[in-house]
Amino acid sequence: MKLLLINPNTSTAMTQSIARAAQGVASPATEVMAVQPSFGPASIECQYDEAFAAAGVAEQVRLAQGWRPDAVVVACFGDPGLDAAREASGVPVIGVAEAAFHAATLIATRFSVVTTLTRTCITAERLLQRYGFERHCGGVHGTDIPVLDLEHVSDETVSRIEQAAREALSRDGSSAIVLGCAGMASLCTTLSARLQVPVIDGVSVAVKLAESLVALGLRTSPLGDYAPPPPKVYAGWASTLGW
Amino acid sequence: MKLLLINPNTSTAMTQSIARAAQGVASPATEVMAVQPSFGPASIECQYDEAFAAAGVAEQVRLAQGWRPDAVVVACFGDPGLDAAREASGVPVIGVAEAAFHAATLIATRFSVVTTLTRTCITAERLLQRYGFERHCGGVHGTDIPVLDLEHVSDETVSRIEQAAREALSRDGSSAIVLGCAGMASLCTTLSARLQVPVIDGVSVAVKLAESLVALGLRTSPLGDYAPPPPKVYAGWASTLGW
Amino acid sequence: MKLLLINPNTSTAMTQSIARAAQGVASPATEVMAVQPSFGPASIECQYDEAFAAAGVAEQVRLAQGWRPDAVVVACFGDPGLDAAREASGVPVIGVAEAAFHAATLIATRFSVVTTLTRTCITAERLLQRYGFERHCGGVHGTDIPVLDLEHVSDETVSRIEQAAREALSRDGSSAIVLGCAGMASLCTTLSARLQVPVIDGVSVAVKLAESLVALGLRTSPLGDYAPPPPKVYAGWASTLGW
Amino acid sequence: MKLLLINPNTSTAMTQSIARAAQGVASPATEVMAVQPSFGPASIECQYDEAFAAAGVAEQVRLAQGWRPDAVVVACFGDPGLDAAREASGVPVIGVAEAAFHAATLIATRFSVVTTLTRTCITAERLLQRYGFERHCGGVHGTDIPVLDLEHVSDETVSRIEQAAREALSRDGSSAIVLGCAGMASLCTTLSARLQVPVIDGVSVAVKLAESLVALGLRTSPLGDYAPPPPKVYAGWASTLGW
Amino acid sequence: MKLLLINPNTSTAMTQSIARAAQGVASPATEVMAVQPSFGPASIECQYDEAFAAAGVAEQVRLAQGWRPDAVVVACFGDPGLDAAREASGVPVIGVAEAAFHAATLIATRFSVVTTLTRTCITAERLLQRYGFERHCGGVHGTDIPVLDLEHVSDETVSRIEQAAREALSRDGSSAIVLGCAGMASLCTTLSARLQVPVIDGVSVAVKLAESLVALGLRTSPLGDYAPPPPKVYAGWASTLGW
Amino acid sequence: MKLLLINPNTSTAMTQSIARAAQGVASPATEVMAVQPSFGPASIECQYDEAFAAAGVAEQVRLAQGWRPDAVVVACFGDPGLDAAREASGVPVIGVAEAAFHAATLIATRFSVVTTLTRTCITAERLLQRYGFERHCGGVHGTDIPVLDLEHVSDETVSRIEQAAREALSRDGSSAIVLGCAGMASLCTTLSARLQVPVIDGVSVAVKLAESLVALGLRTSPLGDYAPPPPKVYAGWASTLGW
Repeated sequence: MKLLLINPNTSTAMTQSIARAAQGVASPATEVMAVQPSFGPASIECQYDEAFAAAGVAEQVRLAQGWRPDAVVVACFGDPGLDAAREASGVPVIGVAEAAFHAATLIATRFSVVTTLTRTCITAERLLQRYGFERHCGGVHGTDIPVLDLEHVSDETVSRIEQAAREALSRDGSSAIVLGCAGMASLCTTLSARLQVPVIDGVSVAVKLAESLVALGLRTSPLGDYAPPPPKVYAGWASTLGW
Repeated sequence: MKLLLINPNTSTAMTQSIARAAQGVASPATEVMAVQPSFGPASIECQYDEAFAAAGVAEQVRLAQGWRPDAVVVACFGDPGLDAAREASGVPVIGVAEAAFHAATLIATRFSVVTTLTRTCITAERLLQRYGFERHCGGVHGTDIPVLDLEHVSDETVSRIEQAAREALSRDGSSAIVLGCAGMASLCTTLSARLQVPVIDGVSVAVKLAESLVALGLRTSPLGDYAPPPPKVYAGWASTLGW
Repeated sequence: MKLLLINPNTSTAMTQSIARAAQGVASPATEVMAVQPSFGPASIECQYDEAFAAAGVAEQVRLAQGWRPDAVVVACFGDPGLDAAREASGVPVIGVAEAAFHAATLIATRFSVVTTLTRTCITAERLLQRYGFERHCGGVHGTDIPVLDLEHVSDETVSRIEQAAREALSRDGSSAIVLGCAGMASLCTTLSARLQVPVIDGVSVAVKLAESLVALGLRTSPLGDYAPPPPKVYAGWASTLGW
Repeated sequence: MKLLLINPNTSTAMTQSIARAAQGVASPATEVMAVQPSFGPASIECQYDEAFAAAGVAEQVRLAQGWRPDAVVVACFGDPGLDAAREASGVPVIGVAEAAFHAATLIATRFSVVTTLTRTCITAERLLQRYGFERHCGGVHGTDIPVLDLEHVSDETVSRIEQAAREALSRDGSSAIVLGCAGMASLCTTLSARLQVPVIDGVSVAVKLAESLVALGLRTSPLGDYAPPPPKVYAGWASTLGW
Repeated sequence: MKLLLINPNTSTAMTQSIARAAQGVASPATEVMAVQPSFGPASIECQYDEAFAAAGVAEQVRLAQGWRPDAVVVACFGDPGLDAAREASGVPVIGVAEAAFHAATLIATRFSVVTTLTRTCITAERLLQRYGFERHCGGVHGTDIPVLDLEHVSDETVSRIEQAAREALSRDGSSAIVLGCAGMASLCTTLSARLQVPVIDGVSVAVKLAESLVALGLRTSPLGDYAPPPPKVYAGWASTLGW
Repeated sequence: MKLLLINPNTSTAMTQSIARAAQGVASPATEVMAVQPSFGPASIECQYDEAFAAAGVAEQVRLAQGWRPDAVVVACFGDPGLDAAREASGVPVIGVAEAAFHAATLIATRFSVVTTLTRTCITAERLLQRYGFERHCGGVHGTDIPVLDLEHVSDETVSRIEQAAREALSRDGSSAIVLGCAGMASLCTTLSARLQVPVIDGVSVAVKLAESLVALGLRTSPLGDYAPPPPKVYAGWASTLGW
């Protein structure tokens, strides 16, 4: 099975770190190809950044067509370009926020999200609403840790996230933590041991969900909203990306 | 990995058929133990039946404690006893309705459910509401096929289900079908080929979700609502099942 | 009028105390028969307990068929087995959580629930969602008083409940209190006098709702979801309870 | 017990017919005083009419203060002036739409409303949303029968309502009918016999709910939103109605 | 363009102050006629008051028919009589709460409302629910400033509102303030300067929305729920107001 | 006042046609600058197209900074890049779907959307959910007219849209029509005359809303979710667009 793992930002260090997280949980039979857009923000910390990142995800799905991936994972907690990737690939496409939320509802009645910048909470809240998990999430909590600080995580950063998680569990009455940034994947084990509740990293869940759907022969529905894009002239730098 | 597969009704033929469906998709490393309650209805076609079936699921989780399962699947589309099983096992517990709904939202923007008796639609509708998928489901449709007719599926039965699915796709504007009975697991491939949209059987999805959570080290949260039951005196035939 | 009052747990003391509460408000013309399941937990403090209790309610409705009750009240705040009882009896069936919520919305714009173990709040929250009262309830608050401590209520217990109610009124901005356990029925007058807001015990409301529906000739709808159970073979200890 | 029954329109014939319906179900110990506003529309068929009717309900509650009612029923399906009446009376106040919806959810999983003018459906839909019953109602259906035609109901009118109810049950998948006009109270028995499902008239349910709350000692909460109106200068014809 | 500006209470000082606010933002081509009901409360601080005010709005729309307004603004934060005014005028009718909410959602992801009496919050909350903005509003906060104190605003009053707004922004995580009383219109600039976030007065927004709809040729739909009232006999003091 | 009007697709003919629609309703004092992205799809008919268009909107807001617009309108019915534009401009930004929905709820209790390709309905449905108008919209209806056919509208195309609108009004019980494509702006008057209900084109409403907010001194909140983007390195073709 060939898995296309897209880091929607343009930080190569982040792409590598996410790739390690994915490979750490992937089955031996899964070949992971980790890519990042050819353009756009080094990290995604606002909706302006996200607009470029979503186009970058679409670009990478288009460019990887020749590789014929069996599934795609979009590895940024805002799930940018998820629908575009589904239309353009036809195979299962899993976003890491989506994956983490799904897993959380299977093992806890209420979960909390701990993320990076407070201003990105709105994105997670809208995804929760879209996916239907708004009633299962007790709260989305910003730590105001810059995304790129997660490339090399310090002890202090871990402690800040742990502290935010403790407060969230208590205030929200929740019993599981979702890590709200693909860059936090490596902290999962440490935090879970310290907090004694499930701590969920979306990257690893997304990989297993993708493998599961492929194993079951389930693909993105070719009917309706996710049908392949209609043929279209594309202008400018994107002129080769039209359908 | 040891998977406890519980058929909540007392039809041995159904237990065997569900076990086959589960084993057909399980990893080679997964040992499946299929069980059914020691009491209760031969099939679950109303909420009276379901009340006994839920207790039967709780009983089987309790009795299987010595076997130390790594995960549990509850294989009836009403997901009876799901919460009880989570408290009593501490490991991941997946219901087949839940599993099918999760998978459907990952590959289609809207799905329809085709089930057995029309009167059981209310159960699916309440589960959709509880899980948060009420906006993703275009409709739940009864075929009024008795559950036990699914032990040996006739061509006519397949055609009725196919016809109901076609109407559902068209009327609901949906693009995937969820089969609303664990007994329909064997029809998945046939129907998917005929309808040319994803057709989802919850049993097989539940097995893969259970395997995924176990692989990721995610267990039912020990904190709060799903903590082990408090110690309690149990009376009557259930006297050995108290905590 | 004959009223079947089911205590879903197997504590005889609790059954008697609930019966007293019911008889205290019932019309002289109402004959109350108080029963409890022949099996299951002495108190209901988690969803594992509740799975058995729901089957116990179904059993008692079935066994009381010969008595031909005109209405049924299910006297545990989780309303276990409510739907099963409706199918199996055909007469009006009222749960005490349901009854209390209905009454609360008629006399206050927002109410709070004060209950026993914090872990049972999830059950009340799901019922609120199912019944449609999630926007009318300001919060469900656990006191972590064990249910069986309510068999003989101490002054300290009353004070703890009073204190929790005061905090709930203030934090939730609510103006009525619903007591979240059938075992709290006897505290209603005391607490109402102390708090100077309506304090609602579901047992007494359920009795009056049941009497009202009977007086109006309204019965559980025989059409659709609550039709009598389809005939079915039942196995094991429940073999005589099939339809 | 003294029950103030307010017909919010100014049709004396309608007031009398509603009074008969109320007295037909009231306990012998309940004294019913039926009143109507001193001003406003002869029937309520749009929101312009309803604005005057709500003020008329407020007027009648104010004028009846000397009589010291124990409860109030507002007998128009739009529940006009319900909140005003709660503030101004302090006793339980029940609207007939509210009452009918509550009863319907106790005996059926889904109900349909059959009402008079199609343009009034929006009022019922908003009430359903406010009370929390929007998910329990399958649909609100107009018959375009003028309200005052219900003063003397012809066979043809009954047949039109019956036909609309049959279509509603089938299209909505519902199992009980709520009559969407206080003027339809007298048709309840006939329609119920013909349709073989519960048919609910809000006037009679409201009377029993009012009696029930009074029997239980439950009054409108004096705290917060329903506290008595603050003192206020009133101008014009309403100058004596200020608090 | 002729704009009918209705102050639903009977305080002439308030009518004048609202008229000044409206004229301050109206286009030179807009003629504003400010009116108030001939009856009813001097200020609107509870739902009893509001019942009379809604009828007063209906009265004023009816009486102004000869003037042939092009649009109507209802200038009380509870939007009393809004629907009645739409039916009775046929032209665009804008409520000031409605207007403020619409504007707030266009410039902020979440807003808070700061209003007068705490007991009126329920009205704003119900409007938010009706208009669909319940998820965009972080909270409605009372200051318990009497409405008529706003006729001549003291420094202390401004400070209390400012303080409430600061707390609301912080607690709700919101980024804009809606002033919850038409009488607060004059404070908008001061508060906006102090708080450094958008502060929204519904009166001025309503005027611009009304002008916009008129400029676009958009009128209240003549079809369905807002069609002109059906002809009707009106009794008592309202006898000339029937249709 | 300077208004930046962004056509998110790269069809110059469409940009000109939208510019004409905007200029037709803009105040004489409003200077309209109409632009389109330097890259991307000639029309937006799926979510793959939309991913590029959203980045294109962000690009154009960034490039127009020197011009210092007072407001921005995003003229594609999917409102692509709306949040990005708010962050990047700081001034009011209005999407045409958003604008049309807002206007519709001010003049009708329920509206229907008639759009181009059926597969784009999902986008409108998600916007309705996000903005809070899901309960006000009776349905979103595709006509399967390609977007670029709207550059030169034939009589047959008008008739198809009219027919779809008539069916929508009847099936949805709605009383206003929202045109679901910026390219339909020129059809508004014709359709309104034929259908005799309000027909709403988002482009013209967006222009008036933008003018209104500017006139009132209301800008996108500088606090929180819409604060200017944090400084960031951008790679590839977008290297000059970082903050």
